[in-house]
Amino acid sequence: MPEIYLNHITAVTAKGQEKNNPTVLGCGANECERLVGKIGVHSRPIALSDEYTSDLAISAVKKLFANIETTASDVGILMVCTQTPDHLIPGVSSRLHGVLDFHQDCLVLDINQGCSGFVLGTQTITALMQNSARPGILVNADTYSRLIRPEDVTTRVLFGDAAAASYFSTKPEGLRVVYCRSFADGKGYNAFVARNSGLRKEEGVPAGIYMDGSSILSFALRAVPEAINKALNDNSLTLRNIRKFVFHQANSFVIGQIAYKLGLSQEQVPQNCAELGNTVSASVPLLLTEQMCLLEPGDFVMTIGFGVGLSWGVSLFQRV
Amino acid sequence: MPEIYLNHITAVTAKGQEKNNPTVLGCGANECERLVGKIGVHSRPIALSDEYTSDLAISAVKKLFANIETTASDVGILMVCTQTPDHLIPGVSSRLHGVLDFHQDCLVLDINQGCSGFVLGTQTITALMQNSARPGILVNADTYSRLIRPEDVTTRVLFGDAAAASYFSTKPEGLRVVYCRSFADGKGYNAFVARNSGLRKEEGVPAGIYMDGSSILSFALRAVPEAINKALNDNSLTLRNIRKFVFHQANSFVIGQIAYKLGLSQEQVPQNCAELGNTVSASVPLLLTEQMCLLEPGDFVMTIGFGVGLSWGVSLFQRV
Repeated sequence: MPEIYLNHITAVTAKGQEKNNPTVLGCGANECERLVGKIGVHSRPIALSDEYTSDLAISAVKKLFANIETTASDVGILMVCTQTPDHLIPGVSSRLHGVLDFHQDCLVLDINQGCSGFVLGTQTITALMQNSARPGILVNADTYSRLIRPEDVTTRVLFGDAAAASYFSTKPEGLRVVYCRSFADGKGYNAFVARNSGLRKEEGVPAGIYMDGSSILSFALRAVPEAINKALNDNSLTLRNIRKFVFHQANSFVIGQIAYKLGLSQEQVPQNCAELGNTVSASVPLLLTEQMCLLEPGDFVMTIGFGVGLSWGVSLFQRV
Repeated sequence: MPEIYLNHITAVTAKGQEKNNPTVLGCGANECERLVGKIGVHSRPIALSDEYTSDLAISAVKKLFANIETTASDVGILMVCTQTPDHLIPGVSSRLHGVLDFHQDCLVLDINQGCSGFVLGTQTITALMQNSARPGILVNADTYSRLIRPEDVTTRVLFGDAAAASYFSTKPEGLRVVYCRSFADGKGYNAFVARNSGLRKEEGVPAGIYMDGSSILSFALRAVPEAINKALNDNSLTLRNIRKFVFHQANSFVIGQIAYKLGLSQEQVPQNCAELGNTVSASVPLLLTEQMCLLEPGDFVMTIGFGVGLSWGVSLFQRV
């Protein structure tokens, strides 16, 4: 089976911005300071009223094509991971396919996943690429801000809107995909739900995201270290062999707790959620692309997603 | 790479039923007779008010486990293809995972695709299974009836609500997966759209499905025969080598036109849409499971999906 490489990532953020201050959040200065101090998110990109997930996705892919030699007609797989599509029917990937002139002989696919969606997307696109010599593009794009209930400060302070486009091919450049594993626990379905967002109608329940923060936190502190240790074990590596752990940027508090539990150094655990917030499945590629230039040939990078579903996963890459 | 087999399919239909008669459709007796005569759909299963896509999916998978020796804890991949999820966040597969006690070490994935979703799902799940010895389940489930505008007779007469669960493993039983190809033309995005169904708000546009029937028809008559001929050519087969062509049951008129254009015999082109309607991505496995007992070892079956996106695809199976 051919080796697959993640050659390039581009990222875009939504055009609007929201600051986490008492006026925006509608809370007292002390509460705001305490909250922002804990989660480490100071401001977040927010979609403008006419800016949809497909628009962010198109911008990210256009930027990708401006940075690589491939054109849309060369691409064999176009996959979009989103939970905030423009329409239920068709998927966001169909809009991209038409607007950006992809070839008809191209597998086009929307997958629905949240904060573990970069790992799941990488696992799925690389599996599909085993049967095709042509490159693939994974887009992670969301506009969660449209599903936030404005008065729900605990979720409002967290989420930013962004998109990332990741280009995979058999060309040995960038990061070699070494390993991917995805896990799930559907018994935690209700820990993070966007109610009245799909076709199930719940009368008297205001539409939007409902998060059980403490249950998500305890899940993350249990499941993520386990999955990391399993990945290390499966690849005969130790924590010290990993140059960077690119965690889903849930918020600084969660990442800090996981890093502490594992005994990781600050240098191993980069963060960028202060001005981006939690950009759902785009958060891992947004941070990974920042870290690319800091890596040396042979370095291992582990990316870790976790969240809604519940679901979690680990990918291992090696810089070539 | 291991061979993958489609060992078993179970199907369930929604508990309600709607007849295509003048009272239901709100049209004259002559118009109704003409319409029903052309499309060949007499009645359709329709979800009850408390029956959601995840409920149909759970029923189909429960029925599957009652018919095979595997239990949920053995399954390595659980994939749901739907365009009518209960919630945008999380996916339908997460609910199934929790309710039916799947293992945490299981890849759980929702894909968004319509009438080509069985081929796309088969292609995706078999690709992911190359890296795992454990079986996979693909569920195709939709409740399009919730997105039909009641006064839009041209779509109302067509769609039924159903689910199918397809069980794939490396055990050589049932149908060997020989070949899958998926195609797309996003320039036809607007030919079939559920407006105001996702996060893009279109003021003054009643929510629901909008179909440009003639554009879908001319697409199907062009793209489907081409894809079938390509699949035959890629596998050094001719039309006469295929025992059954299991077409997406769009409606009798479309299937008849495609069959006529290709010169297929009636015996080669089974149909079951008279009492089921167009059950979106479930339609192919619903018909395929009916045909299984008619096949002899060595027989080839081709399944063909086409529709929204626009998207289309062909899978080839061989009875073992």
